[in-house]
Amino acid sequence: MHFASDNSGPIHPEVLATLAEANQGYEMAYGADTLMNEVRDRIRGIFEAPGAAVYLVATGTAANALALATLSKPWETVFCSPVAHIHEDECNAPEFYTGAKLTLVPGGDKMTPNALRGAIEGEETRGVHGPQRGPVSITQVTERGSVYSLDELQALCGVAKEFNLPVHMDGARFANALVALNCSPAQMTWKAGVDAVSFGGTKNGLMGVEAVVFFDESKAWEFELRRKRGAHLFSKHRYLSAQFAAYLRDDLWLRSARMANANCARLADGLRAVGADFLYEPQANMIFASFPRRVHRNLHRAGAVYHLWGSALEGTDEEEMLACRLVCDWSITEDQIDQFLALL
Amino acid sequence: MHFASDNSGPIHPEVLATLAEANQGYEMAYGADTLMNEVRDRIRGIFEAPGAAVYLVATGTAANALALATLSKPWETVFCSPVAHIHEDECNAPEFYTGAKLTLVPGGDKMTPNALRGAIEGEETRGVHGPQRGPVSITQVTERGSVYSLDELQALCGVAKEFNLPVHMDGARFANALVALNCSPAQMTWKAGVDAVSFGGTKNGLMGVEAVVFFDESKAWEFELRRKRGAHLFSKHRYLSAQFAAYLRDDLWLRSARMANANCARLADGLRAVGADFLYEPQANMIFASFPRRVHRNLHRAGAVYHLWGSALEGTDEEEMLACRLVCDWSITEDQIDQFLALL
Amino acid sequence: MHFASDNSGPIHPEVLATLAEANQGYEMAYGADTLMNEVRDRIRGIFEAPGAAVYLVATGTAANALALATLSKPWETVFCSPVAHIHEDECNAPEFYTGAKLTLVPGGDKMTPNALRGAIEGEETRGVHGPQRGPVSITQVTERGSVYSLDELQALCGVAKEFNLPVHMDGARFANALVALNCSPAQMTWKAGVDAVSFGGTKNGLMGVEAVVFFDESKAWEFELRRKRGAHLFSKHRYLSAQFAAYLRDDLWLRSARMANANCARLADGLRAVGADFLYEPQANMIFASFPRRVHRNLHRAGAVYHLWGSALEGTDEEEMLACRLVCDWSITEDQIDQFLALL
Amino acid sequence: MHFASDNSGPIHPEVLATLAEANQGYEMAYGADTLMNEVRDRIRGIFEAPGAAVYLVATGTAANALALATLSKPWETVFCSPVAHIHEDECNAPEFYTGAKLTLVPGGDKMTPNALRGAIEGEETRGVHGPQRGPVSITQVTERGSVYSLDELQALCGVAKEFNLPVHMDGARFANALVALNCSPAQMTWKAGVDAVSFGGTKNGLMGVEAVVFFDESKAWEFELRRKRGAHLFSKHRYLSAQFAAYLRDDLWLRSARMANANCARLADGLRAVGADFLYEPQANMIFASFPRRVHRNLHRAGAVYHLWGSALEGTDEEEMLACRLVCDWSITEDQIDQFLALL
Repeated sequence: MHFASDNSGPIHPEVLATLAEANQGYEMAYGADTLMNEVRDRIRGIFEAPGAAVYLVATGTAANALALATLSKPWETVFCSPVAHIHEDECNAPEFYTGAKLTLVPGGDKMTPNALRGAIEGEETRGVHGPQRGPVSITQVTERGSVYSLDELQALCGVAKEFNLPVHMDGARFANALVALNCSPAQMTWKAGVDAVSFGGTKNGLMGVEAVVFFDESKAWEFELRRKRGAHLFSKHRYLSAQFAAYLRDDLWLRSARMANANCARLADGLRAVGADFLYEPQANMIFASFPRRVHRNLHRAGAVYHLWGSALEGTDEEEMLACRLVCDWSITEDQIDQFLALL
Repeated sequence: MHFASDNSGPIHPEVLATLAEANQGYEMAYGADTLMNEVRDRIRGIFEAPGAAVYLVATGTAANALALATLSKPWETVFCSPVAHIHEDECNAPEFYTGAKLTLVPGGDKMTPNALRGAIEGEETRGVHGPQRGPVSITQVTERGSVYSLDELQALCGVAKEFNLPVHMDGARFANALVALNCSPAQMTWKAGVDAVSFGGTKNGLMGVEAVVFFDESKAWEFELRRKRGAHLFSKHRYLSAQFAAYLRDDLWLRSARMANANCARLADGLRAVGADFLYEPQANMIFASFPRRVHRNLHRAGAVYHLWGSALEGTDEEEMLACRLVCDWSITEDQIDQFLALL
Repeated sequence: MHFASDNSGPIHPEVLATLAEANQGYEMAYGADTLMNEVRDRIRGIFEAPGAAVYLVATGTAANALALATLSKPWETVFCSPVAHIHEDECNAPEFYTGAKLTLVPGGDKMTPNALRGAIEGEETRGVHGPQRGPVSITQVTERGSVYSLDELQALCGVAKEFNLPVHMDGARFANALVALNCSPAQMTWKAGVDAVSFGGTKNGLMGVEAVVFFDESKAWEFELRRKRGAHLFSKHRYLSAQFAAYLRDDLWLRSARMANANCARLADGLRAVGADFLYEPQANMIFASFPRRVHRNLHRAGAVYHLWGSALEGTDEEEMLACRLVCDWSITEDQIDQFLALL
Repeated sequence: MHFASDNSGPIHPEVLATLAEANQGYEMAYGADTLMNEVRDRIRGIFEAPGAAVYLVATGTAANALALATLSKPWETVFCSPVAHIHEDECNAPEFYTGAKLTLVPGGDKMTPNALRGAIEGEETRGVHGPQRGPVSITQVTERGSVYSLDELQALCGVAKEFNLPVHMDGARFANALVALNCSPAQMTWKAGVDAVSFGGTKNGLMGVEAVVFFDESKAWEFELRRKRGAHLFSKHRYLSAQFAAYLRDDLWLRSARMANANCARLADGLRAVGADFLYEPQANMIFASFPRRVHRNLHRAGAVYHLWGSALEGTDEEEMLACRLVCDWSITEDQIDQFLALL
């Protein structure tokens, strides 16, 4: 009953198998391995983007920070949600890599086109004095488990394009969003107006690999230099490639995401049945819900693991509603979910 | 017959086995995994340093850049060899992370105490105008396959201490040096005067893990923040821990290094027997040697893989001596070495 | 009738005279000039801070960015008002110099202790993942012409001290605030809990000099190195010193600030008399007021110079109220003010 | 008898007069002042470069660091002399602003085309691993008082152009070089292949102003943003403009440089007459010479001020030759020089 994070689960057995398979003899270092060719080709195929520049790094923060650095200038500002991972959870890595600052688009978890337009219009109004307008960064799945629809993505990208600003997608949970929308990777990215995407693997069954995809090939060399300068180029790169190759072979990435989302839906249904309050409508593999302190106590006592959300278990009011975050990955079993629900 | 780099070989089967073993159920993220406790304890034990701060990162450049950033200030200069990896092969990562610059100690591959003292005395002579003196970085094994003796290390660290400067050791091939010297990790580091070490694993049979060890615990929290800000903190950290745990269990790190050095010695003996010139006396697992162009041609034709060193195979003078670099890792077989030697 | 900015006016004749006086013979460079000794001594005296570290730089942005960099770490966040100059008008200079980010304290122009406490509590809640809490920066006079009372300053600093955070004061209009409060420099700074102040001269009659004062002397050397590394150390420093010496001699700084505030009060009274709306209550030398488009047209036609505030003169509704900013410096004459008022 | 530095002398009376003249009424801030138009036009005229981008900053280090940052990328290296001011005397400012590193061209004070070519060829040989080749920075007058001839400049720039690298000229003593060569500004810059120049004023009679000139206008906006982000944009910019306007009016810059060089020649002649050794042949306004300790003692006792160069006055051997640096500016009188010579 482990719902703390999709960072806590094991890697998929097929990934381990591909690592073992890749572990034969010598191989070119630093990304010149043959598995990387496979990964690049597959990603270009999946995204219907034959000229895309494709790179692997080991952490989501590296993917985001390097992608944004490549899309921006140090005197610009990046537009994002106030709860974006790049703002809240990367300890200034985006600022370190870009030299730029972040402008928080007012509102909640999801940015609206109007709020984004307002934020953009509010910058670059004072000549050289204020920061210049830079990239827009969209998180898909959002930090609160919501999924932007294709219409919403197009509208946000459309606003960015009005101002000639590039768009970055933080897709740490890219696959979960994709299967939720039941659309193609191209539809969710460049066809909607996205210029670069952090295409996550770590939260969906890999050990630690994220692909960075630029639809504009001209960014390729700069990215390579930034990756090396950031100390994110692996010498034994084949082991990153092997993970991502496994991820893409036989649609493992989609199978795992569907499993995670289905697990989440089963959990959400159960919570709904017992009358839990949802802070956000669960659309992918995360649930933000509230139930009474006594229920949390039972769950903790029974060994359930998850984060309270801005609440503390300590307290005497047993009926007080406490919010929590529940994350499902591909590996959780229906039994565990049912066991959890039974405790409610 | 692959002698291009110790970055090109496979990982040790025991490492793969430990990864598989670690891949069970849920585990705390971001370094709070139980295997990390094992790694920390073992490293403290191995180094006879019960209070050492121990961290894992995935690349050698990250280990060096983050360690140096933690030891320096942006207005300082780092003293190193003109052929140091941090100067030649990290695409400004040390400058990016430290904000400081590098002062190249005149001379060759190995720094001498006098040259180091001269370089240090040459800085911080102009008040605020020049950079201030910062850490000394020593590469052990050096970039040219040499090993500093304990006396040499103590003398270099002694010079640093005269000026109250911290000492960093780039130990990408730490194990190879250690078995060459047949000394203890403590002797080769803090007992000699080293303050922080990049303790390499990647070149010695891991997929991609380096430990950073600070003998002064007070650097710990700053390092953790720098690691996260640099995007080098792994969420599924247990897979870094598992690699390093395997590395330390049953002395795999020493066994592999001994194997690599023995392979290198066998190769060097064979080269010596056929009259090859050595640019540097091989002391660990790297050889820099010269032999005639026609011999290189034969070797290439037969499938041997290695780097020419500042030379080009193209040319018509068949007897011209061309330098090359030959690196041995743990995985090369005696048969391959003998096959290579037979071609000479 | 020039009310655009206190950056637009001339320098005070006494400043020019002191520059001429300083222009005799040779003088030590880089801050070792004798006039700097006078400036340091006077500032220490004025602030009742015999051990204060005192430096001169040429721009307010340099004063703020260097002071904040000295008080913070690159993994921290600086707390400030959403309309702070460091956020809106310095083109990422604070981020460039500090490496840190800014957290905007929700609310308006002036920070309240509760809002500040909430903002501080909202950071450093996620271990290494989010930025760590860094300095609080208070602007006095605020960007909207308000002045924090001593009680308000003490309350804000008190909140910072609860969390052991240093406090910086952006005093680009320090003198205007001081004469508005009719208190001592010590009361408005270290006695209230301020650790470092950008003590402005440029907007109050100098060509371009700001003093940076640290009440904790231990920051001195780091600041000197940061100033040089930022390219803000003047070789012919005596000409910065001469300006600030003139500023402090015979209380020129206070005389000029009193003049500017008096000019502003005269203007505000006149505006009030004709029923103008004030967006903020004028407390120092800036007015934010609204009056009908037709009045603005008259003023512009008559040669008055000032900024409309988020409004545009173009438009057809002659009665529409348009906001503007009016700034008074020491040099404007009562005649000009009366002429302006007569046009209303 | 003050020969310590051309940073120690007074400003020219014509500069002070122009400052006073500029100090009338209100003026647009931040470089929009009318005097800046005059400066820009004159510089374009003087350089025969009608499209040049022209900016003013207050320190030479700012001019160099900002110009180099505009010409380079953070993963590049800047080629310069081992004694270049940007390497030795700017406390890492170039590294701070560019993010790049410096490659020291082997040899002495002056770079030779062959040494430069060798240094360039030595970089960018390892793909992404090493830094990429960046701008070449030439100091004219050099740090040791030498002047590159037009042929030498063309040859150096020619090497840079072979590799498509931009060329920066650190012209802190631009005017002294120009009058020594008796050529035109265009000949010494863009006609020789220079792309950007730090055109110094401070060492030649101004308080603190350097012009940065880009012959490629497309760099203009980036420079403006970098200047602001570096906190080097002056609000009361007219006082920078006024200094430089005075500098250019009636050829004050050339008159002052001719005076300084003539003073230096007179001093050199006198030294030569008494048999002093010259470390470098004096070509502009700096002399590096050796004479016995007892002579230095006499000079110091008589009040002469200058720097010993790597030597110390302390010592007992009265006949030991000690090196010193003697710098002449425009303001020194023939009497002072003769008085100095009389003491030899």
